Amino acid sequence: MRSLFCLLGYQLYKEDITKALDAAYCIELFHNFSLVHDDIMDEADLRRGQAAVHIKYGNNAAILSGDVMLIEVYQRLTKLEVEDKITVIELFSKVAREVCEGQSMDMAFETLDQVSIEEYLEMIRLKTAVLLGLSVRVGARIAGSSESDQEHLNQFATNAGVAFQLQDDYLDVYGDPEKFGKKVGGDIIQGKKTYLYLRAVQLLNEKERKDFIEFYSSSNAQPFAKVERVRSIFDELYIPHYCEEAKTAFFDLAKSHLDVVNLPEDKKVELKEFALTLMNRNS
Amino acid sequence: MRSLFCLLGYQLYKEDITKALDAAYCIELFHNFSLVHDDIMDEADLRRGQAAVHIKYGNNAAILSGDVMLIEVYQRLTKLEVEDKITVIELFSKVAREVCEGQSMDMAFETLDQVSIEEYLEMIRLKTAVLLGLSVRVGARIAGSSESDQEHLNQFATNAGVAFQLQDDYLDVYGDPEKFGKKVGGDIIQGKKTYLYLRAVQLLNEKERKDFIEFYSSSNAQPFAKVERVRSIFDELYIPHYCEEAKTAFFDLAKSHLDVVNLPEDKKVELKEFALTLMNRNS
Repeated sequence: MRSLFCLLGYQLYKEDITKALDAAYCIELFHNFSLVHDDIMDEADLRRGQAAVHIKYGNNAAILSGDVMLIEVYQRLTKLEVEDKITVIELFSKVAREVCEGQSMDMAFETLDQVSIEEYLEMIRLKTAVLLGLSVRVGARIAGSSESDQEHLNQFATNAGVAFQLQDDYLDVYGDPEKFGKKVGGDIIQGKKTYLYLRAVQLLNEKERKDFIEFYSSSNAQPFAKVERVRSIFDELYIPHYCEEAKTAFFDLAKSHLDVVNLPEDKKVELKEFALTLMNRNS
Repeated sequence: MRSLFCLLGYQLYKEDITKALDAAYCIELFHNFSLVHDDIMDEADLRRGQAAVHIKYGNNAAILSGDVMLIEVYQRLTKLEVEDKITVIELFSKVAREVCEGQSMDMAFETLDQVSIEEYLEMIRLKTAVLLGLSVRVGARIAGSSESDQEHLNQFATNAGVAFQLQDDYLDVYGDPEKFGKKVGGDIIQGKKTYLYLRAVQLLNEKERKDFIEFYSSSNAQPFAKVERVRSIFDELYIPHYCEEAKTAFFDLAKSHLDVVNLPEDKKVELKEFALTLMNRNS
């Protein structure tokens, strides 16, 4: 998805996407570096249906190969065929740092009692969305677009990225088990502080809130029963509606940035359609 | 030491070292990134007499802050005041990758039955020495030295670096406990495959070798007795002599590179003296 965003960003301005392939590779490699290290930190055993690197080769190999992947990203960036490589490396580094910051927030949230919706949105912006913004921006940059277009495309993809992540949270609870790749209800079983959960906490009155927080964070409940009960609370509170509302707000913001990009409308359609498909995906 | 090498490299050509401070900072920061991650992998509890990062803040924080340190190295490199920043970033990345490769070899050696002296020397070259080479090279580069001078200075510091590491191995067994920072005999107690050990394995006959390898790798022996016995075997085999010989060979090679650097002799004296002090240090 990230590399595709980079190629689409390029294609807004120029046809021959081969010139953007190396940058798309860097973005994909950076993303994979972050997954390798995140999976160690999150103690995630599976990645794309297979044993995660740290499970298959051990933590040490996962730390070190992640390091080498990050270094290789920079090695490839120095070889990009683009006018101002230093600026591309700067943009990349800024986002790389933000992604780490997002991961740090995500981990911190696990042990925090209170997380505000604003903090949660900032976390997903950093952990997931800014890299999408960078992808489109770098693609457009390599194609020679203006700084202003690049910044609006960045904002388009970043805000769309927040919407995708909200859809991820939604699908984890309301996804069709047959279409959704992961086990539905996984976030609830883990007691993960998602948008749905945080919104519910916000909407409940003080007495209900206390019980709900305790039940949601507990690992004693039988998983199936826990998912069912949390889902029924979400239903009662119209959480799917609020989730849709938030998603739409971010997507509208995203579109407002795409609108001011200095390109003919038909050029932007593909990017908008692609983002819309991702946002409304059911798997 | 590494940042000092960078400043000395600069001073060979120009006086005002403030222009090399940012590069020296990058080198020191990169070194510290590698220490933070290495200490996790090596399960080292102490660093500079204090709790290592992963002990004080946990593995996750150590992985992530190491990642951010590496990214910051690149952020600072893009801001260097030097003509061809891309080349500096390329040189840096190549060495960064080699340092990871050295760490990977070092870890692999722990579980390998046989390690040749050549492999060991290659490991310490990658893990420790190439970063010293880079330090001097980058300092000289920022001062505007020729490519040829840079390459010879790099070879000087890299080969001197191997000699320093051999001295480290030597001091771990023969250092004065009052002067040596770490506990003397630590490598022997851990059964670490050092130059001294590998040389001894090479010199022993087949029967003695088998017993020695078994004894050295065993963790059953009482530590003090193990150190005493291994040291007496090293003494009988004249290991200190062979160690000195190897050290001198690398230092001579280092000097031969410094000799052809296109600078007046008095300019090179300080660098040579500094390297000599490091090589013959007793703590």
